[in-house]
Amino acid sequence: MAIVHVSITPIGTGNTSISPYVAACHTVLRAKLGLKWQLTPMGTIIEGELSEILAVIEEMHEVPFTHGALRVSTQIKIDDRRDKHATMAAKIESVEAKL
Amino acid sequence: MAIVHVSITPIGTGNTSISPYVAACHTVLRAKLGLKWQLTPMGTIIEGELSEILAVIEEMHEVPFTHGALRVSTQIKIDDRRDKHATMAAKIESVEAKL
Amino acid sequence: MAIVHVSITPIGTGNTSISPYVAACHTVLRAKLGLKWQLTPMGTIIEGELSEILAVIEEMHEVPFTHGALRVSTQIKIDDRRDKHATMAAKIESVEAKL
Amino acid sequence: MAIVHVSITPIGTGNTSISPYVAACHTVLRAKLGLKWQLTPMGTIIEGELSEILAVIEEMHEVPFTHGALRVSTQIKIDDRRDKHATMAAKIESVEAKL
Repeated sequence: MAIVHVSITPIGTGNTSISPYVAACHTVLRAKLGLKWQLTPMGTIIEGELSEILAVIEEMHEVPFTHGALRVSTQIKIDDRRDKHATMAAKIESVEAKL
Repeated sequence: MAIVHVSITPIGTGNTSISPYVAACHTVLRAKLGLKWQLTPMGTIIEGELSEILAVIEEMHEVPFTHGALRVSTQIKIDDRRDKHATMAAKIESVEAKL
Repeated sequence: MAIVHVSITPIGTGNTSISPYVAACHTVLRAKLGLKWQLTPMGTIIEGELSEILAVIEEMHEVPFTHGALRVSTQIKIDDRRDKHATMAAKIESVEAKL
Repeated sequence: MAIVHVSITPIGTGNTSISPYVAACHTVLRAKLGLKWQLTPMGTIIEGELSEILAVIEEMHEVPFTHGALRVSTQIKIDDRRDKHATMAAKIESVEAKL
């Protein structure tokens, strides 16, 4: 199980707003069963099986192109820990418990 | 006003857990007035005046060294929009409204 | 054709040096035909067909685990432009021509 | 001494090309003495004293706004190692020596 942060940004659209593209990407993401996700002000965090997550991100990366974008910048950060079962919720709790 | 994502990771500590370092960084952050922040499973998002945010991140970046780390990897992503007043809350609402 | 930046970092190894892991990842990358790459001081840039690049990155991400790491942080940035054929060399030339 | 990767991207400009903005940012960077830099196909790597690097990045981040951009996305990755003197050249050599 991995936790992955992704942000997908169309470049050169002529509009500073990118929320319509983010919403369209989320429609793809939210249709997948077996993945947990959290929308943040700076991207989306996904929890699940790594290859499944990468497959949905590859699909999400195509979305802005189908909505007219000609250039897309996608950033992915994988946190993959194999010495214990990591979850989004447990990571937050682990920090908060030390404060 | 900018919105900034930051994650600070010590390298080579001998321990896969980094939450004690994250908590120590947050103690520095939470002492600052005038900045809003949100802890996520993949980092921290800060909203406020850009130079103030960068100053606190530079201070947070020092924290793992003072706790014994010898190498620190810090990632920062700035989202700076000047055609309207952007906030963390408004960015989320803007996406959710389109879903 | 896409251009992708990747950096793969083991967390908690007990050693601040990560070059042995980077070298092992490059052995996997350099065995692939059809992909161009450039090693930089902060990661590796790969040029080629996007799904092929993502497949090799998924393979490279496994390498530190096979060398004893228990947690791996992998960052990927995809630059995918579909209005023209982009290459690593052309991107550099395009900037230098304007200086 | 730190090694820092930076990429600065204007959002919503109406043009998929960003090289004019990158060139303008480099004019600011190249005027600074005391910093080494390397332009890559995916950003710029800077070597030098950390607070000096962050100061020039803050200055570079303003450049696209002065050229008409209304939203700028800036990504920074700091590699700060204090157990030895790290350089861009040494990092590359260290990997190549293991291949």
